[in-house]
Amino acid sequence: MPNYQASVLVSLRASVLDPAGEATRSAAKGLGIQGIKRLRIGKSISLELDAPNEAEALRRVELLADRLLANPVIEDWSLDLKPAPSSL
Amino acid sequence: MPNYQASVLVSLRASVLDPAGEATRSAAKGLGIQGIKRLRIGKSISLELDAPNEAEALRRVELLADRLLANPVIEDWSLDLKPAPSSL
Repeated sequence: MPNYQASVLVSLRASVLDPAGEATRSAAKGLGIQGIKRLRIGKSISLELDAPNEAEALRRVELLADRLLANPVIEDWSLDLKPAPSSL
Repeated sequence: MPNYQASVLVSLRASVLDPAGEATRSAAKGLGIQGIKRLRIGKSISLELDAPNEAEALRRVELLADRLLANPVIEDWSLDLKPAPSSL
């Protein structure tokens, strides 16, 4: 069965505060790193899956992102799917 | 001063266990999502900064990733930097 690699980026919606990001931005200033105007922290999920075809792989990863990886009330997600190098 | 956008991906080193990723993989199976062979959770940091030029922007983001965003004992990072659309 073909093998696919997917990467899902989960980020806080723009309207949601990100205290961890804000703390990091402030710590960067403390380290002497100037000029950072915005910093937000999200999740990056990398996965490998077997599926009969690319459309089915995409359907599974979208379901996973919608139901498990992101909280749709406060987060958005985007995904990138491609055949795994070993199965090309 | 030119404005840059950067995205830093922080992932656990391959040799480090990822219990949260393993729990997510197992929960996916419980949801009926078949075929997931590997799932690992990392961080994705998106930021905007002002810097006099691209080399200086890169230097600042690399310093930030090395010193603040990633724990070099257990994590690797990669980064992508480009001029912000508004400053093109």
